[in-house]
Amino acid sequence: MKESANTGPLAGLKVLDLSIIVAGGTASSLMADFGAEVVKIERPKTGDPLRNWGPFYKDVSLWWKIHSRNKKSITLDLAKSSGQTLLKQLANEADILIEGFRPGTMENWGIGPDELLASNPELIIVRYSGFGQTGPYKDRPGFGTIAECMSGYISMTGFPDSPPVLPPIPLADEIAGIFGVMSSMMALYNRQIKASSNHKHTGQVIDVSLFEPLFRLCIPHITMAHLLNLVRERVGNDFPDAAPRSLYQTRDQQWLGLSATSQNTWENLAEAMGMSEVLNDERFKNNASRLENKDALNEILQQYLGGVDLEDIMENLVPAGGVVGPVYTADQIMNDPHYAAREDIIELEDPELGNTKMLGVVPKFSKTPGVINHAGPTIGEHNSDIYADWLGLSTADISDLESEGTI
Amino acid sequence: MKESANTGPLAGLKVLDLSIIVAGGTASSLMADFGAEVVKIERPKTGDPLRNWGPFYKDVSLWWKIHSRNKKSITLDLAKSSGQTLLKQLANEADILIEGFRPGTMENWGIGPDELLASNPELIIVRYSGFGQTGPYKDRPGFGTIAECMSGYISMTGFPDSPPVLPPIPLADEIAGIFGVMSSMMALYNRQIKASSNHKHTGQVIDVSLFEPLFRLCIPHITMAHLLNLVRERVGNDFPDAAPRSLYQTRDQQWLGLSATSQNTWENLAEAMGMSEVLNDERFKNNASRLENKDALNEILQQYLGGVDLEDIMENLVPAGGVVGPVYTADQIMNDPHYAAREDIIELEDPELGNTKMLGVVPKFSKTPGVINHAGPTIGEHNSDIYADWLGLSTADISDLESEGTI
Repeated sequence: MKESANTGPLAGLKVLDLSIIVAGGTASSLMADFGAEVVKIERPKTGDPLRNWGPFYKDVSLWWKIHSRNKKSITLDLAKSSGQTLLKQLANEADILIEGFRPGTMENWGIGPDELLASNPELIIVRYSGFGQTGPYKDRPGFGTIAECMSGYISMTGFPDSPPVLPPIPLADEIAGIFGVMSSMMALYNRQIKASSNHKHTGQVIDVSLFEPLFRLCIPHITMAHLLNLVRERVGNDFPDAAPRSLYQTRDQQWLGLSATSQNTWENLAEAMGMSEVLNDERFKNNASRLENKDALNEILQQYLGGVDLEDIMENLVPAGGVVGPVYTADQIMNDPHYAAREDIIELEDPELGNTKMLGVVPKFSKTPGVINHAGPTIGEHNSDIYADWLGLSTADISDLESEGTI
Repeated sequence: MKESANTGPLAGLKVLDLSIIVAGGTASSLMADFGAEVVKIERPKTGDPLRNWGPFYKDVSLWWKIHSRNKKSITLDLAKSSGQTLLKQLANEADILIEGFRPGTMENWGIGPDELLASNPELIIVRYSGFGQTGPYKDRPGFGTIAECMSGYISMTGFPDSPPVLPPIPLADEIAGIFGVMSSMMALYNRQIKASSNHKHTGQVIDVSLFEPLFRLCIPHITMAHLLNLVRERVGNDFPDAAPRSLYQTRDQQWLGLSATSQNTWENLAEAMGMSEVLNDERFKNNASRLENKDALNEILQQYLGGVDLEDIMENLVPAGGVVGPVYTADQIMNDPHYAAREDIIELEDPELGNTKMLGVVPKFSKTPGVINHAGPTIGEHNSDIYADWLGLSTADISDLESEGTI
């Protein structure tokens, strides 16, 4: 099946993704959303272990179907020397190669960065691993949970009187995924600029661990510990430097987020709630005093908000400039008119799943928007296409490779 | 002070950042880490409100100093028509412009995308807002907390018997920040490729909301709700599809992350713990049965881990292939040898703060690594440099602009 062309900014870019599960796949997923030709290399027969992640619909992993949308799948046994030869040939045709094996594995197979760059000096190689390619922990197995714990993020998440809280999605992997796209695009820009000034050969290796990208997002924490001896711990849903900001429960048992951390937003909010006595209360007159009396303030706000239904709160407070919003679940998102207007939920026909809704393309480009053409492919669905188009193999070559188990 | 050249992949790229607080600043911060010349435009006198975010050291915001490292600061009053004229001139020299005003504000000032692109058709404009530039909620004030709530992420975070949990960092803003770098780099690639084939003028507008990037990371949730009627709720620290995976408390009251979600990792872990009776227990023989009996399993693991100190657990379990790691706080990170070996914590002399430690550059490029030259500048520190270098203004011009309050 020939698919309609993708209008995205990466149309024409060729990406090989050898990684498994989430991190590398997030990088290649975002590239595929925006028009790159992403070829996922899977183990013959078993495929990416992500295919075994529940939940399933018609025996197909929904994780796989969404995470691998727009990608092509080919099979290749990288532990075989015939597979390594093919990989080198494929890498010669690619702009970007993504891998996520334990450090040293590619080198042991004779397809490490030195070999690949010697043959294709313009290749950009993104390497994913739990702890990076260097340092004393580099050989430790890398799972997102451990990366989250060691990044510093988890020690600050949750309430002081209950355990720290892990994220409900593979956050470290996914953020590492976005860092991988971001950095490979930077390397690509560098390569294009150098090429236009006749300095060719600007392939390189980007070392992306799972723990460092999330650590990078804890922006001033190292400096706070160094200069102020201040180590942030769990503070629940209050904000350490401004108030009010928390979650509250409405009369109809919905959770509501509320943020009024500037004087202006606070006054608008209190007025819209008809709380002139609170506005005149010395305990709440400015941010410093509100912070000092935040428990009392939270109680007053909870008392008000607990007496009104979510819909009425939104109707009363939003037009007055109140910064409030519901804690949405996926089904509520599917019914929200703003998500619909932004085309954040799209629908397509999939040969395995039938009619399928999924999240749309983020963010929105004015001239080269991303387009979703199909959900995740079956194992090796594009063997004939890619081995013929990229390497010029014949149908007979391809079926030989299949019968010897290389692909 | 002339600074040493940045070797990063974006050396030579010119970026104007008109945004305030966190999201746009995250995008420009990552660009600055990697060598772009980032010029932060601040309001004369008051500057970016981020400068008022605590905590402070020597009366200087640590958020500002770290978030704005490597950036240059100039002042400009965009509400003045003389300021708007200067902005247009600066935008003519830039590759990327980042803004974060309420939708419509730039247009009202006569410096909307149409005007800027008419004058510089190669400009890439990244627009940040709470809800995006279109849709029924576009005029609502956009704060990260509300974006987090409405993205679907928060409803799944935390324990079933306590409130949902907000993130301890401005997560929605920061993820939107990375999406902004990622997408502007994609647009830049598209522009360079088109330029090399003589199709010039590929500037465009990228519309980045705060709620959509975090929503994008909840990968299969819309599809699960659609096809399976399955709406994920809070499950604490267990993983809904595999066990064991949770946090446990050690004898010395440290929290430990543990993940053994594949059969292999599980068997290695149980053996290293000397738990042959658990390995032979029918309740824990495979992932399905472990999931069914995860409370019992967590209790057994907590009992074992609660009897050993963190250091001993790491020493015993890691060499055996156990996937475990401590829940680090910032001070523990500062003492960790792996962070040190990866140069994840760097040190510099700052004119305001003195000797300052901060997080390093993430990720690691083999050929064009990012370099940190300085922490966040003072308000307007680079007025003379930029207005002279970019626009050719004389010292007299610049002081006129200062005295009339334009800069």
